[in-house]
Amino acid sequence: MNSRSAYGSDHPIGVAVLGMGNVGTEVVRIIQNQTEDLRQRVGAALVLRGVAVRRPDVDRGIPAELLTTDAHALVARDDVDLVVEVMGGIDPARELIGAALSAGKSVVTANKALLADYTGELAAAALPSRADLYFEAAVAGAIPVVRPLIQSMSGDRVNRVVGIVNGTTNFILSAMDETGADYDETLAEATRLGYAEADPTADVEGFDAAAKAAILASLAFHTRVTAADVYREGISKITSEDMETAAAVGCTVKLLAICERVPGRPAAEEGGKDRISVRVYPALIPRKHPLSAVTGAFNAVVVEAENAGRLMFYGQGAGGAPTASAVMGDLVMAARNKFYGGRAPGESVYAELPIAPIGDTPTRYHVNLQVADRTGVLQEVAGEFARHGVSISTVRQEGSDEGARLVVVTHEAAESALADTVAALAELESVTSVTSVLRLEGTEE
Amino acid sequence: MNSRSAYGSDHPIGVAVLGMGNVGTEVVRIIQNQTEDLRQRVGAALVLRGVAVRRPDVDRGIPAELLTTDAHALVARDDVDLVVEVMGGIDPARELIGAALSAGKSVVTANKALLADYTGELAAAALPSRADLYFEAAVAGAIPVVRPLIQSMSGDRVNRVVGIVNGTTNFILSAMDETGADYDETLAEATRLGYAEADPTADVEGFDAAAKAAILASLAFHTRVTAADVYREGISKITSEDMETAAAVGCTVKLLAICERVPGRPAAEEGGKDRISVRVYPALIPRKHPLSAVTGAFNAVVVEAENAGRLMFYGQGAGGAPTASAVMGDLVMAARNKFYGGRAPGESVYAELPIAPIGDTPTRYHVNLQVADRTGVLQEVAGEFARHGVSISTVRQEGSDEGARLVVVTHEAAESALADTVAALAELESVTSVTSVLRLEGTEE
Repeated sequence: MNSRSAYGSDHPIGVAVLGMGNVGTEVVRIIQNQTEDLRQRVGAALVLRGVAVRRPDVDRGIPAELLTTDAHALVARDDVDLVVEVMGGIDPARELIGAALSAGKSVVTANKALLADYTGELAAAALPSRADLYFEAAVAGAIPVVRPLIQSMSGDRVNRVVGIVNGTTNFILSAMDETGADYDETLAEATRLGYAEADPTADVEGFDAAAKAAILASLAFHTRVTAADVYREGISKITSEDMETAAAVGCTVKLLAICERVPGRPAAEEGGKDRISVRVYPALIPRKHPLSAVTGAFNAVVVEAENAGRLMFYGQGAGGAPTASAVMGDLVMAARNKFYGGRAPGESVYAELPIAPIGDTPTRYHVNLQVADRTGVLQEVAGEFARHGVSISTVRQEGSDEGARLVVVTHEAAESALADTVAALAELESVTSVTSVLRLEGTEE
Repeated sequence: MNSRSAYGSDHPIGVAVLGMGNVGTEVVRIIQNQTEDLRQRVGAALVLRGVAVRRPDVDRGIPAELLTTDAHALVARDDVDLVVEVMGGIDPARELIGAALSAGKSVVTANKALLADYTGELAAAALPSRADLYFEAAVAGAIPVVRPLIQSMSGDRVNRVVGIVNGTTNFILSAMDETGADYDETLAEATRLGYAEADPTADVEGFDAAAKAAILASLAFHTRVTAADVYREGISKITSEDMETAAAVGCTVKLLAICERVPGRPAAEEGGKDRISVRVYPALIPRKHPLSAVTGAFNAVVVEAENAGRLMFYGQGAGGAPTASAVMGDLVMAARNKFYGGRAPGESVYAELPIAPIGDTPTRYHVNLQVADRTGVLQEVAGEFARHGVSISTVRQEGSDEGARLVVVTHEAAESALADTVAALAELESVTSVTSVLRLEGTEE
């Protein structure tokens, strides 16, 4: 076939795999077992040249001569055309991927932490060499969401991406919702079952979700967003009382990654340019909202675009085989590009939209107050909301042993206005305590 | 940039649009209004060269000189690089697309009927000229499902695709489920509201869904499947009694497009090769199944793959703007390929799996019988199922005025065995009538 630009049909395509944990093991298995399907889909054979591991003496069920501790030498080999990076962490992954891309070797990676901060650097390394950098597996495991955002949405205007993108926290919140158990107890159970790591900080404090939010926002809004741009709160402060509060109003609590276009104000201050808001926090979400049905270790991402309307993508967000499925899809596409010529879309950051600070970001709030049980309290409380420009949607008052309980649901309000309101409420003589302040997502005003 | 192969950066990319119905109108609007975003995403400007219409004298809000009745001349213009076909129907779309592809002009089409029967011919026309043929909009409107199947699943092995891919029938079935109204009445209402066409045959008899099933199966199984390979039943025989029956067992009725890999039997007869089953019919589906929540004009597609597990894609399956979103995504990708060099994956039909006849296809069944109210009837009925090798999962017996009612749910059984069973049951003296036979999908055995 005269259309093949770089390789003859007998020239196999050499693959190096960096790392052989859960995902690497599955990738190696698929490359070695699905040889004929992969050859047909690529146009040439994919041949595993080597796997970089830390401990080469462990029996991994593949020939020992394929294992090496020298990842740099493996990447540099002349017969390696494509590199799969599934070792994780910033170093040495950053350097290895950079070296591969500079040498014109396309890279498939699942490394969200690296991508969240260094996509710009890596894309720059890939530009002159025409190498591809693919990373479907970095967000939401097996669920195709990176490719749809880059390609399928390329003729549309994305306004919002909301996702449940961390399996550990979703497992914990789902279990708390079901059993009524508190956070510490549920975390311990998740650790025991292998859903949480020994040090769960990256998951439960929202760092993992924030890295994914940065990647999603970059793709959705053609603007470089790094992890530091993402406002982040984890789930470690969510109590069983919060869960009860949520249930009482027909909601559940989910850790959401929210990437949003904030329409530009016509005022001169910003020249009318749209801004974007990227944030990760636990929020109430109505049980009838499709994301509330995403339980356990599953992930889902909702994309709202001007013409497409609301799309939802759902599936397994983690695990060796599902993540390997995403890696392999990228690997076949990168190999096809090597074989037929062509190139994946590179980084697209032309829009350069500014990031709106969290204080400016409007959300609805659900505020729980313990108040004195006497007339006039409701009026006082409502007055504080009004004074700070926070409009109330509904108020519910319930008697209790220690006075009365007020549940206030607001219309959309800026974070800063709400924070000021809460501070002022706490000062009121009639307010015993502000029991909880939870954001509310997924409702239409 | 030295990486641009075919065009300099000032060379715009010319687009011809064939047809200006709902979708064409939106495509033209987006090309004309989103010029700067499109230019940034492609790398060069997209310029509308002309729109082929049947009646050029109608005011369509675009300059009259862009309108032409001569689609062939428009496609052949030297300054047309890409063709968007949204006129529908087989002729003249087939010839126009073929001419464009042969001339090296990439084509984006939403024409499922054409693709279901002529993808092979069109792909062959595109092969020597290295043109792209994209058709995301042909299945499930705005929902990215064609691209995920071609690209994201390219390193996995798809076992099953099940979708609600026709908005008209889903609107009718959802309404029947909600209101209890019968089919004719609901169809009339759907027509009045614009959800059904004046001649609804293509939708209600499952032809539209069958064309989409053929496309999905071709992509999922790397095997050319045409509309004639698809077993098809429409919804026009679904009664309000069927809906009641479904509701009584916690189910609803959906028109499903099912594409399934049937594992090869080790027997010599087929050399152990997998077969595929592609079918469209109304089926009971449990209310807790995610597809049962897909109501009205929405579409959803579930993909089950060996490594990815179960994925679901959900969104608007029809309408001008959503379909145009899918067309525009394809158009930007095709334009990028023109600009940077490169090529979309072509047709992949290497697997050539045989199609399993519907008679061989195992499904669960829900059989409703009116029987004489006397002892021994249950035993007789159960005996007929056993005699034909159809295993019973549950039986429910209810008294009624005219005797008793038996509801039999089977385990998976071949269509032919079930048909024989039903014929034999109808002959039994104790069976007054076989009230309904409905397939049951979405349950684990």
